[in-house]
Amino acid sequence: MRTPQMHLTMQLVGGTGIEPGAWRRPGVAADGYVNVDAAVRAAKAAERGKFDAVFFADTPAVVDDLSTRSPSWAPLEPVVVLTALARETERIGLVATSSTTFNHAYNVARQFRALDLVSGGRIGWNAVTTGRPQAALNYGAEVPSRGERYAIAEEFIASVMALWGSWPEGALLLDTENGRFADAERIQPVMVRGRHMFSRGPLGLPPSPQGQPVVFQAGGGGNGLALAGLYANGVYNSPFDIPSGAAHWQAVRRAAQAYGRDPDHMTVFNGIVTSVGSTEGEALQRRRELDELGDLESRVQYLGVQIGVPLDMGDLDKPVHKDLLRDAYAHPGDPRAPLALRLAKEGWTVRDVIAHGIIQYHPVAVGAPEQIADMLQHWFESGVGGGFTITPDAADGVEDFVDHVVPILQKRGLFRTEYEGTTLRDHLGIPYQNGLPAAHPA
Amino acid sequence: MRTPQMHLTMQLVGGTGIEPGAWRRPGVAADGYVNVDAAVRAAKAAERGKFDAVFFADTPAVVDDLSTRSPSWAPLEPVVVLTALARETERIGLVATSSTTFNHAYNVARQFRALDLVSGGRIGWNAVTTGRPQAALNYGAEVPSRGERYAIAEEFIASVMALWGSWPEGALLLDTENGRFADAERIQPVMVRGRHMFSRGPLGLPPSPQGQPVVFQAGGGGNGLALAGLYANGVYNSPFDIPSGAAHWQAVRRAAQAYGRDPDHMTVFNGIVTSVGSTEGEALQRRRELDELGDLESRVQYLGVQIGVPLDMGDLDKPVHKDLLRDAYAHPGDPRAPLALRLAKEGWTVRDVIAHGIIQYHPVAVGAPEQIADMLQHWFESGVGGGFTITPDAADGVEDFVDHVVPILQKRGLFRTEYEGTTLRDHLGIPYQNGLPAAHPA
Repeated sequence: MRTPQMHLTMQLVGGTGIEPGAWRRPGVAADGYVNVDAAVRAAKAAERGKFDAVFFADTPAVVDDLSTRSPSWAPLEPVVVLTALARETERIGLVATSSTTFNHAYNVARQFRALDLVSGGRIGWNAVTTGRPQAALNYGAEVPSRGERYAIAEEFIASVMALWGSWPEGALLLDTENGRFADAERIQPVMVRGRHMFSRGPLGLPPSPQGQPVVFQAGGGGNGLALAGLYANGVYNSPFDIPSGAAHWQAVRRAAQAYGRDPDHMTVFNGIVTSVGSTEGEALQRRRELDELGDLESRVQYLGVQIGVPLDMGDLDKPVHKDLLRDAYAHPGDPRAPLALRLAKEGWTVRDVIAHGIIQYHPVAVGAPEQIADMLQHWFESGVGGGFTITPDAADGVEDFVDHVVPILQKRGLFRTEYEGTTLRDHLGIPYQNGLPAAHPA
Repeated sequence: MRTPQMHLTMQLVGGTGIEPGAWRRPGVAADGYVNVDAAVRAAKAAERGKFDAVFFADTPAVVDDLSTRSPSWAPLEPVVVLTALARETERIGLVATSSTTFNHAYNVARQFRALDLVSGGRIGWNAVTTGRPQAALNYGAEVPSRGERYAIAEEFIASVMALWGSWPEGALLLDTENGRFADAERIQPVMVRGRHMFSRGPLGLPPSPQGQPVVFQAGGGGNGLALAGLYANGVYNSPFDIPSGAAHWQAVRRAAQAYGRDPDHMTVFNGIVTSVGSTEGEALQRRRELDELGDLESRVQYLGVQIGVPLDMGDLDKPVHKDLLRDAYAHPGDPRAPLALRLAKEGWTVRDVIAHGIIQYHPVAVGAPEQIADMLQHWFESGVGGGFTITPDAADGVEDFVDHVVPILQKRGLFRTEYEGTTLRDHLGIPYQNGLPAAHPA
């Protein structure tokens, strides 16, 4: 029997990397968020590394302070970026977020199916709800309550899937001899009807080689799990430790089962930030440089909050004083705080505690390639759901991961050495689907 | 002084050509409407021919009988197609329709700006209203009245332009040295407010080299002229004869003036279907073949209506009998009928009268390259608005026009031999614009 293998998605945040100072780093395109060549370069590297997919998160609003940083959660525009990548890559999956809160189901169905056709069946749709007031105001709307947002999302995804299914496999005939273009009898209005939406259909586009795009879900809570259980084959998760990651995977599997779907068709992708060096020291130096280019002062202050000690920029190059460490404690509200405290007690300088990546949206894997592979293997073998979203600190970290970490994972039998199929569903090991899941309650 | 030169847009309808039977023709990709390579091939050919732009019309609904023909007015999906073309061409403009009736202004602003960035400033937006019930039902909406649709369109275009202008030129600093990403003070909410829409902004994307996409307008009437006068630099028109084309151009110029805009910044593109052969006989043979592949029977019947004579498929290869021609008349409701009657009286067979293209959405230029160039020159010099939308009968007609008709126009000094600028605004001879027109009433 073959060793189980992990699934990997590459996420180049905002075209420059997840670190706020990444856009300033030499070797990173400062205009990466509007320069689609940066995304193409990352996707080609990830494809060389046999990644399952590249992923682009999105929020339809300006939510960052643009005076000091590149927009982090809104790339140029997801449909435009995925189309460019579809034309310039051949095998890798292409996944992007599109909101279920402020869109038309018909437009999402059409654009994502068009993407799936252009890419030969390599698209994924991360179907999220949007709760940011800045986004709502761009659409002249108010933010619906959380419960309402999820009720809309459920109908929205069902509508999109029903529209996708309105053109069945085999109905495109292209019979030039007899002048039969399509089996029009089989392409019929679907009359999607819900409390929040209505769409007649049909959609005028045939299925792709994988049928329809793979649906991904992100965000926790009972509502999120229900969405995942009903519709998703991929789930994005952001656990800070293995126990919470493993618990979420089990919850996702139970949710799929509860809706009559196969739990083995679910992959959870856990976000990990990576900072690769040829040695641990080099990786820490890389992060120190990135911290300098970002907002180091706020990180120093926040480390103080994490460990209950007043810190300022004057403390940067010293270990935390042992008198202060006596009263230090890990802030109970931040799951990253115990690691921060441990590093402080080990005697690292304030600068180096921060360089270990204790202030990031995801756990940070910092070190030599072997160390990063070890961490991923440990998490993987601890049952966190089969996959990881690799989120490099800065754009040049994409190639570092592909060239130095992937070969180790491959050597250990933990990751594919070649694509076996051509579609994203092939990469994820899930079957063709065109329309709502067979078990769907409607 | 240089001879005034015409402007040319290439429109490959539905990826296969405007003739209903085009998808069946050897040498045409039968799946052209879902195969973006067909659009890429056409755009590259048009770029070789120094066309101002390629154009894709769109209706967000299935409105054709798919049993016998390829969807004509809905390509794969405009944003996806334009992105692919942006990556695979370098100079030619890229124009697509997007409805103002069933979209969010913020989404159109964002997607078309992203396209404009990816293409280096080569995008045009044909801002239409949508009155088709099939489209409305896909969005769970009813079709607003014509007046209402135009009122919405006016606010919609103003909103999109205001969002485009919310990121002023020069506000993207990319100052890596000092960590100044953008001049955030200058990127502010626009608070677009109207009777039909609200959008806060700002849009998180800087202007392209041409500022913002060129707005095109299509569709006549007083409402359409007002939209053109307020916002457009390009107008699509479909006149069947020179006098009505010339009258529309004058009306468009007056509309621009009425709103304080420069009438010399308007170009009207008149739709012309082309069927090119090396001789007139070969061109007619080409059309006879396309008629056979399409719905010839309904064309025979319709010719009967045009000239007031009962015709059926049995009459196909004979001239219309002289006894019938005695009572024949040109149907007053169809401006193409006088030509049909004249051809019938000249003694062409029914098949050949039809092959002259008397039943098409646009006037048909059928013949040898010199004949087609003559027709375009005659129209151009009769003051119909400076431009033409060249709409080939079938996909292989794109290259025929580029290789055989364009050189004649160039030799006569009627069309450019090289691009002078890099943006669509350069090709059209209009200035940079980012935001609402200076003279806008709001």
